[in-house]
Amino acid sequence: MSVETAATVADIGEFGLIQRLRQTLAPGTVAGEGLQIGIGDDAAVWQPEPGRALVFTTDSLVEDIHFRLAWTDWASLGHKSLAVNLSDLAAMGAWPRLALVTLGLRGNEAVADLVALYQGLGGLAERTGTLVAGGDIVRSPRALLIHITVIGDVPAGLALLRSGARDGDIIAVSGTLGASAAGLRLLERGGLEAGSSSTTGPMLIGAHVRPEPRLILGQRLLQEGATAAMDLSDGLFGDLPKLLSASGVAAEVDVAAIPVAAAVRALFPDDWLDLATRGGEDYELVFTAPPDALARIQAEADTIGATVTAIGRVRGHRLGSPLLLVLNSNGETIDSSVGAFDHFR
Amino acid sequence: MSVETAATVADIGEFGLIQRLRQTLAPGTVAGEGLQIGIGDDAAVWQPEPGRALVFTTDSLVEDIHFRLAWTDWASLGHKSLAVNLSDLAAMGAWPRLALVTLGLRGNEAVADLVALYQGLGGLAERTGTLVAGGDIVRSPRALLIHITVIGDVPAGLALLRSGARDGDIIAVSGTLGASAAGLRLLERGGLEAGSSSTTGPMLIGAHVRPEPRLILGQRLLQEGATAAMDLSDGLFGDLPKLLSASGVAAEVDVAAIPVAAAVRALFPDDWLDLATRGGEDYELVFTAPPDALARIQAEADTIGATVTAIGRVRGHRLGSPLLLVLNSNGETIDSSVGAFDHFR
Repeated sequence: MSVETAATVADIGEFGLIQRLRQTLAPGTVAGEGLQIGIGDDAAVWQPEPGRALVFTTDSLVEDIHFRLAWTDWASLGHKSLAVNLSDLAAMGAWPRLALVTLGLRGNEAVADLVALYQGLGGLAERTGTLVAGGDIVRSPRALLIHITVIGDVPAGLALLRSGARDGDIIAVSGTLGASAAGLRLLERGGLEAGSSSTTGPMLIGAHVRPEPRLILGQRLLQEGATAAMDLSDGLFGDLPKLLSASGVAAEVDVAAIPVAAAVRALFPDDWLDLATRGGEDYELVFTAPPDALARIQAEADTIGATVTAIGRVRGHRLGSPLLLVLNSNGETIDSSVGAFDHFR
Repeated sequence: MSVETAATVADIGEFGLIQRLRQTLAPGTVAGEGLQIGIGDDAAVWQPEPGRALVFTTDSLVEDIHFRLAWTDWASLGHKSLAVNLSDLAAMGAWPRLALVTLGLRGNEAVADLVALYQGLGGLAERTGTLVAGGDIVRSPRALLIHITVIGDVPAGLALLRSGARDGDIIAVSGTLGASAAGLRLLERGGLEAGSSSTTGPMLIGAHVRPEPRLILGQRLLQEGATAAMDLSDGLFGDLPKLLSASGVAAEVDVAAIPVAAAVRALFPDDWLDLATRGGEDYELVFTAPPDALARIQAEADTIGATVTAIGRVRGHRLGSPLLLVLNSNGETIDSSVGAFDHFR
């Protein structure tokens, strides 16, 4: 173990690393149902069950853009790399089946750190029944890269899309919003230690570095008749317009109804609402459902320990009018910003 | 068009770019058989046919490691990014169905260059019936990244693996080896112009920047009873030991039988054999087959304009003896190197 702590990728080589990382994963995470060929051949081979449609998503994390090594431990980084992909599946009501993991490495990474990365990733994979079926390891001298593709499945024809919202539906979100963005603010102020200055700091930082994909809730949304859903990665006011636009509808959101953790309000009294609506990386679900379906979904959420909060209503959309109206507690429009967050502009 | 020539990614933004790249692809490349949801939702949804097993592969190209912008045009880069993935499917006897394309961009890339990238990628996708089902665009300020995951299919239970080679099988390769490595040498000497100093230069550089995945041949290998196959990305002597090791067998290769283009021998009289056996990036197939199956495969290869050359024999492997013996025309062992190419050591 002391040898391994000191070893780098260059010391043990590509094949040594693949073997070591494979060993890090629980046996049920590299071989299982339907997987005929996993890690080690030119490609992975898997046979889905009849009547299932497959759901594919992919997310890349680039060092110093999507994460900083000073602001995360390696296990959390592995967890988050998989979690952000699973969150996309949750938003479709899909369950993850396979993951392909590609690492872009400088070569001077400590093997022990990459093992920790795989432990974090592997823990979430095991808990969700996701098989790590293959991937790639490439050289990337200028920045660490983590690229994951996840394949999930849903009953054929039943995936929960962005395009199904209808006039009269209720808009709701899971969990609370803004904790991840607040955690990022704490990290920007002083790294991982900054969080310890308050009792709620570690919770907020945890929301940022170890988001939990809402897979079980996503299944319930699909089963109980939600009409549309997406996961929140770019903030409620960045993402909701994408769902509205895909559905051809408009919406009113009651700002007072948006669930925000008390810690976010307390630590950021001036801009907690901005964190909650434009902060990003919540990885909660925003969805629409007819009122009766929402009641069933809320009951189901209770049984799985999830929270679901109604925040507004879907309306018909007239050409030229805003997609999204933000109302205060008097029902007055205080914002009609509709712009989605753009990573380049 | 003149406006677009000058526009950068930052000018048109992420969503503008996604829309522009989607338009670049032929309509049949973004929507088709089994694809229920393509580009634009949280994930892609696709329903495979019953009785098919799915084959997954993924490859990343990092700027200045896997390509240099001075040594390729953008369309060729797009072609190659997809081709190296399709080559992995060819080696399994699989046919491509879906591709997920992720770009990591600085933001100052010219839109016209990325459109050309997609034209190259899209041309190969269209020709092979591969649907571009989704992907991701992320910021990557330090290096351009192209990451592609391809999903193909095979009749369930029939994928062509690395592990099926048996004592008595013949070892064969498609095409000729070394042209890509020779092309890379020319590029190292003087960029894209270097190739024009000889009449064969453009052919060799073409082999490097625009490899052709051997998909049709891979299908024939599977149908006609090949026992094992893999694609050659790290050179014959780097890759063949991986196949032998997976199959638990050894092999003799006749160096005089290895097919090498005359241009490679002529331009590199001192090290053409090294280029052909250790150069890498051939993206030809190496495979094993019983003698009677090989005869059928060669007949099939003729009908599709492919060449297949027998280069050696599979033998039983005794513990401690070399996996691979390289024999000269007198049947004398001249090399027994067994090391696979390692990207980090």
